[in-house]
Amino acid sequence: MNRQQIIKAVTEKTGISRKDTAKVFSSIFETILKSLEKEESVRLMNFGSFTVKTYKPRKGYNPASKIVVQLPERKAIRFKLAKRATSKSLK
Amino acid sequence: MNRQQIIKAVTEKTGISRKDTAKVFSSIFETILKSLEKEESVRLMNFGSFTVKTYKPRKGYNPASKIVVQLPERKAIRFKLAKRATSKSLK
Repeated sequence: MNRQQIIKAVTEKTGISRKDTAKVFSSIFETILKSLEKEESVRLMNFGSFTVKTYKPRKGYNPASKIVVQLPERKAIRFKLAKRATSKSLK
Repeated sequence: MNRQQIIKAVTEKTGISRKDTAKVFSSIFETILKSLEKEESVRLMNFGSFTVKTYKPRKGYNPASKIVVQLPERKAIRFKLAKRATSKSLK
């Protein structure tokens, strides 16, 4: 499923125009990203939470070339589904 | 950041009413969840993708009680940030 299909489903369900739905759609995800860029978690009830996890710098070793490299600090987004978000099949 | 704060930011940015924004907001995340419940991935350009990962059933061992248990198949949502979603600090 992609952006297009979600917007279509939402307009059918809410009766709100495609144009306004698309605007709100874009704005929501831009807002979420901006928050994450500031390393501020985003928690959405009945859906899930996005948090920024920082991985410490570490030494990496390539066993083939036997070269040790210093890997810099790394950040990644973690998503956790809300417990009550969905049926029990997904946890 | 939570639902409330995102809706506020979106209404300020788009000029669309709080009521309509809230409706679209709820509908978007319900639609995403429904798709994931059907194990259909959701890919949002410039944001990221949600996929359902299935973990095979496996044996679990509790070293304290020395009991081996059969762990059932498990499903979880994986989120991957789009490459072009954000500044280089988050990957």
